[in-house]
Amino acid sequence: MPFHMRRQDREVTDKKKMMEIIKKGKYAVIALCSDNDPYIVTLNYGFDELTNTFYFHGADKGQKIDLIKANPNASLMIIEDLGYQYGHCSHAYRSVVCRGKMTLIDHPEERVHGIEVMIHQLEPRPEGQLARIRDTDVIWRRTQIFKLAVESMTGKERPEIE
Amino acid sequence: MPFHMRRQDREVTDKKKMMEIIKKGKYAVIALCSDNDPYIVTLNYGFDELTNTFYFHGADKGQKIDLIKANPNASLMIIEDLGYQYGHCSHAYRSVVCRGKMTLIDHPEERVHGIEVMIHQLEPRPEGQLARIRDTDVIWRRTQIFKLAVESMTGKERPEIE
Repeated sequence: MPFHMRRQDREVTDKKKMMEIIKKGKYAVIALCSDNDPYIVTLNYGFDELTNTFYFHGADKGQKIDLIKANPNASLMIIEDLGYQYGHCSHAYRSVVCRGKMTLIDHPEERVHGIEVMIHQLEPRPEGQLARIRDTDVIWRRTQIFKLAVESMTGKERPEIE
Repeated sequence: MPFHMRRQDREVTDKKKMMEIIKKGKYAVIALCSDNDPYIVTLNYGFDELTNTFYFHGADKGQKIDLIKANPNASLMIIEDLGYQYGHCSHAYRSVVCRGKMTLIDHPEERVHGIEVMIHQLEPRPEGQLARIRDTDVIWRRTQIFKLAVESMTGKERPEIE
């Protein structure tokens, strides 16, 4: 590393490659701010490519919810760790950083859509779980669904040293 | 996940276990704030247990440096990814979050100490590289060393589902 600096030789500008990293990933590290104090949390995600939106789930109470309500600005990082390069003081990786607004989802249909996007992202055989959420959303009742609408996306990579 | 929420059943209070996660890790995701806008970056680190301080290196110019100078508040996350738990909508992990102040290091001796801490953390056979930095710091001349002095540390874990 370092990730996401001014090194243009490490920049990924290819949208297709960024989508690969996002689609392969299971979780993202998210930064929020409260009174100029940073807060950091890691969450599983689903990404909806049609609307350029990440969906997440979490408890329906707690610090994260309060922070999002107070300040929706968010940055998100997804890392594909290709391993520390021993003897080279270097780390191989591919990564994507997205910035945007984080909001809580209350509309029932958008909640279900968000859950479906997450199941498609996370589960290799989503059919069983998708059927269950269509039958009943009991297991999700105490779960807050939220989303990050992407405003900007950048990618970086540093390949393995041969 | 989610990581680092109010779920007390997932809290790691054992300092020894947090040290294990930190010592095993190679990189951390760091959140900074600028005018209540979050910034996120991933960096390799070295941790000095005696002083409860993380050391990092990066370019000596760029957005990160400007942000740290303007607002030293930082949050840092280290994740030990134990894998997505297919069929359970769950992710197994161990993680540590630290909060503290990030500062740039200009004092030559502290610079060398920071580099040594990083080499010990990152390299399994540090002797060769340690000898080289003691002989000359040419390769590090355009490198900014910085540190995060830890003010608080919390840990979380969610074991694999059997």
